[in-house]
Amino acid sequence: MLGASGYAGRELCALILRHPRLSLAYATANSQKGETAFLPGGGSVTFDAADAIDLDRAKLAFSALPHGASAEWVARAREAGVKVVDLSADLRIGNGASTGIPYGLTEWNRDAVRGAAVVANPGCYPTSALLAILPLLTQGLVAPGAVINIQASSGVTGAGLTARLDLLFGEITENYRAYGVGNSHRHLKEMRAMVEGKDVELLFTPHLLPVARGILSTITVPLRAALPDVLAPFRAQYASEPFIEVTPDLPELRQVNGRNVVRLTARAVDGLRAPTLQVFSAIDNLMKGAAGQALQNANLMLGLEEPMGLPQ
Amino acid sequence: MLGASGYAGRELCALILRHPRLSLAYATANSQKGETAFLPGGGSVTFDAADAIDLDRAKLAFSALPHGASAEWVARAREAGVKVVDLSADLRIGNGASTGIPYGLTEWNRDAVRGAAVVANPGCYPTSALLAILPLLTQGLVAPGAVINIQASSGVTGAGLTARLDLLFGEITENYRAYGVGNSHRHLKEMRAMVEGKDVELLFTPHLLPVARGILSTITVPLRAALPDVLAPFRAQYASEPFIEVTPDLPELRQVNGRNVVRLTARAVDGLRAPTLQVFSAIDNLMKGAAGQALQNANLMLGLEEPMGLPQ
Amino acid sequence: MLGASGYAGRELCALILRHPRLSLAYATANSQKGETAFLPGGGSVTFDAADAIDLDRAKLAFSALPHGASAEWVARAREAGVKVVDLSADLRIGNGASTGIPYGLTEWNRDAVRGAAVVANPGCYPTSALLAILPLLTQGLVAPGAVINIQASSGVTGAGLTARLDLLFGEITENYRAYGVGNSHRHLKEMRAMVEGKDVELLFTPHLLPVARGILSTITVPLRAALPDVLAPFRAQYASEPFIEVTPDLPELRQVNGRNVVRLTARAVDGLRAPTLQVFSAIDNLMKGAAGQALQNANLMLGLEEPMGLPQ
Amino acid sequence: MLGASGYAGRELCALILRHPRLSLAYATANSQKGETAFLPGGGSVTFDAADAIDLDRAKLAFSALPHGASAEWVARAREAGVKVVDLSADLRIGNGASTGIPYGLTEWNRDAVRGAAVVANPGCYPTSALLAILPLLTQGLVAPGAVINIQASSGVTGAGLTARLDLLFGEITENYRAYGVGNSHRHLKEMRAMVEGKDVELLFTPHLLPVARGILSTITVPLRAALPDVLAPFRAQYASEPFIEVTPDLPELRQVNGRNVVRLTARAVDGLRAPTLQVFSAIDNLMKGAAGQALQNANLMLGLEEPMGLPQ
Repeated sequence: MLGASGYAGRELCALILRHPRLSLAYATANSQKGETAFLPGGGSVTFDAADAIDLDRAKLAFSALPHGASAEWVARAREAGVKVVDLSADLRIGNGASTGIPYGLTEWNRDAVRGAAVVANPGCYPTSALLAILPLLTQGLVAPGAVINIQASSGVTGAGLTARLDLLFGEITENYRAYGVGNSHRHLKEMRAMVEGKDVELLFTPHLLPVARGILSTITVPLRAALPDVLAPFRAQYASEPFIEVTPDLPELRQVNGRNVVRLTARAVDGLRAPTLQVFSAIDNLMKGAAGQALQNANLMLGLEEPMGLPQ
Repeated sequence: MLGASGYAGRELCALILRHPRLSLAYATANSQKGETAFLPGGGSVTFDAADAIDLDRAKLAFSALPHGASAEWVARAREAGVKVVDLSADLRIGNGASTGIPYGLTEWNRDAVRGAAVVANPGCYPTSALLAILPLLTQGLVAPGAVINIQASSGVTGAGLTARLDLLFGEITENYRAYGVGNSHRHLKEMRAMVEGKDVELLFTPHLLPVARGILSTITVPLRAALPDVLAPFRAQYASEPFIEVTPDLPELRQVNGRNVVRLTARAVDGLRAPTLQVFSAIDNLMKGAAGQALQNANLMLGLEEPMGLPQ
Repeated sequence: MLGASGYAGRELCALILRHPRLSLAYATANSQKGETAFLPGGGSVTFDAADAIDLDRAKLAFSALPHGASAEWVARAREAGVKVVDLSADLRIGNGASTGIPYGLTEWNRDAVRGAAVVANPGCYPTSALLAILPLLTQGLVAPGAVINIQASSGVTGAGLTARLDLLFGEITENYRAYGVGNSHRHLKEMRAMVEGKDVELLFTPHLLPVARGILSTITVPLRAALPDVLAPFRAQYASEPFIEVTPDLPELRQVNGRNVVRLTARAVDGLRAPTLQVFSAIDNLMKGAAGQALQNANLMLGLEEPMGLPQ
Repeated sequence: MLGASGYAGRELCALILRHPRLSLAYATANSQKGETAFLPGGGSVTFDAADAIDLDRAKLAFSALPHGASAEWVARAREAGVKVVDLSADLRIGNGASTGIPYGLTEWNRDAVRGAAVVANPGCYPTSALLAILPLLTQGLVAPGAVINIQASSGVTGAGLTARLDLLFGEITENYRAYGVGNSHRHLKEMRAMVEGKDVELLFTPHLLPVARGILSTITVPLRAALPDVLAPFRAQYASEPFIEVTPDLPELRQVNGRNVVRLTARAVDGLRAPTLQVFSAIDNLMKGAAGQALQNANLMLGLEEPMGLPQ
């Protein structure tokens, strides 16, 4: 585990420690080397400096290094013959030059992930939104030229374990605000890349919630035609997926807390001239939005069963 | 004060106690008669049964009785020659038969309020949304036939001081969810009535935040044409309004907590073919969204200065 | 599971569903019969009326019925030949007539629990406090005649899933208060009964925290003599206990969230004439303080391994 | 205002802006010079570098500079002939050499404050605790040689507006913990100095609450003899105090939020051999515990009415 001291890194260390077939070869964190951190769910990990460890002590490395710093370490790991799941944005689709590296939105890219040496793990917002809209797009249900309006709210761990004044408890409690507006958030690139070729546009507005974990996306989708059964496209797509819960009820953050699932539903919008659907999608940003999905991908890359060691 | 034991009622009692020209003639709450409640900001009030008081001990009555129960008491107060600000939905525009009673969205209906014997105080969500979109609509800036997408999130006091399991702390903390979806929330009627005659449709999705107070509305508006200065329509409209803060920054709930203001900004949405604006509007649902606006209206009805006794 | 719809009941249903050797024969909740509830960690349960089920479909029944109502169902289950872990206060030591029923503070009563047909599961506060003070008392370290001052703070789920105005999110967030003061809380009886015969007195003050789960007890203990190693009494006592974490660091609620453990430490108090110790003890009130400890006891009563199916 | 960018500094700027007789001559914050900050309750302030302002533009300066840095600026202000209220610990009683500077616990030191050129404003915890125990001590009600056990819990703004990982929302929400234990917190010095000469010892344990503001102290006091009326000593002492609320009810943090008051009650402890009292005391750490009390002192130093410009 490279860059293990942040929220996603610690979550992944905890998953690895409980995994029936994996063990934790190393956990690096230059700024906290020698320190021991308590892990979610119990247990602890002591951090090494990245330069002090032999990368090839592991068959597969997870990198939760900061955006920008990760790509270099992915390259080093590859030289050492180590497979990598990169949780940073560095190698993701839509972020600069085409890399040919699979985008690890597992349910949509399973075959490419299975054979890959490197996988770019999706961002948390894109995971929440893409799993909700791709069934509609691939089944041709969206109105041509439509603007898909993605309004999403995230818990503060999405911003990482960084000492920022605006993330202090005193600034977040009893507060709520939008940020990264004007369609300017970095995650929009991945989402756009994944809907390329479809005749739609994306509008994305993230908000910051006074909760530790979780993302709820409320997505408005103009339809080609009204749907007789609004859940059918999702049920058809995800019937055999262990980590996707299609439900008639509106999803809540608490239902996905600590779990590697997306929970989603859809509702027709009444009283508008054009047929319109709203899709509601909830994930734990640190699990299905980061560490959990990374482990899902790693299991596939290592020839293990995909759900192994994952809290459903 | 009729129906004084709820969140809005207590807030209003507290405002009246501190008002330089008003005093509290009575505060009724049948279910809590004889009990004394601590008021926000200090002080307390003891509740009477509604039948035990003489309505005409006051020149003006506020009613924060439940929807359905309020209309009858408004009628009684009128018979007793008492002016009324009704905080329930019973007499609001769009809620059934045309009543001719002014809708107390003060900044847009000041003249009608000033002379009225009864005023229907707006709902909290409509206050937040209408103050944000009416400048664009009245200035002809919205694309004809547009769907205005109102995504709003409210603190739990918006649901009232009612003993519901789903409003317990244990159910709300670290949680977030949509509700009243499919364009079905009661407040939509008021909003639609206020944009009647404009060639637009409204889509409204409320969400429940883990905060006590505050509403943030994120509103997407397709424009007739891109705006050279996105704040100009709001600044023009609200230049002399003491309770509307047009600001370049994104508003936050904490900035309006305990204050009788709307704080709003607008941003152009990038990367879409059609010119599109987002308006962000924050209020304290108990102040500008209920008690504060009610007092603004009462001041006008009593010939007092509109801002008298109102925080900021 | 009798009385399955409350917080402890749901937690226990979730544990049973994931248990490798147990399955859920029934889950009763008269007020919610026919309803389906989402369980912590995923999965769901549908409630039956208590009268509609055959008690002997299970070998062992958990009762999380309200205090007062539970004793009758425990009797019925016994008649049907079903073992019972009773989570109510009805049969606990110190609550009225001597029942001879073991008090299921597992680490201190393991042998009695193992052979029992009925076990009274301890209250959450007593679990937190007794595990912290019993090692000092049984090792004769406490000053004769001492007053042990137990200051404890609990999350709101400790008050149950009941529709009380004072437990609404709007009343709890950004708030904190003592309750049950003057040494009057029901849980004090169990604690006193468990220290009977020792020459000490107990002072207990509970407080209500704005968190969903967790109890932290800060306990001041006058010592017979200063201790060379303040952790030694606890390490000696609990060396082989899987669910007790003795640590040099101050325990935090987050470290025990969702886990069936007590995490505790001790510190000498400086600057006082009399040698004095403070013990800090953290539990998850719904796990080690209720459902988890109940399952620990049930495992023993059924001849299973004590830690089976328990998180950490 | 020197050191105006922290929580107490901003609170004080907001109070000054609304004060009927004071105006804000300057607000310094070297690290944020040129920046504009939103103030609690509305309005804003732009910070200057401390070196860029003429201290004597004000008749009285408040210093909320960090402990250690403040003393130097107090000296500079004095040279410039400016009175000072120092909110840091630098000049407080018990913190090193005797300074002769009045300790601004206003209700107990009013006369000394009135004539002073410099006042050391008390810490938040000492304000909460001393106002609760001094009436008992000065009236000779405490058992000789008693240990007064002060258990206090504070909101996170007490730790200041500093970018510390352990103060992030993600680390504080749903959490609670003790800190500064073993009787080692800095504030203990002030408390001990203020009870010097009384035959008592103090034990003080602070805890960190998941709330923004507020301190609740639960204080156990062994009495010389049982009291016929436990509130009488407080009512006698504080009968004419505008900022002290003696109440039969247990105080809650929400009751003092944003207000310059201490709200306190007392309860006899039942079931102990020795007569024992518990005192419960709630303040807003930023108001009565910092900015509000500072303004109370400043009003006296400037010959204004003590309550001027203070909420409630």
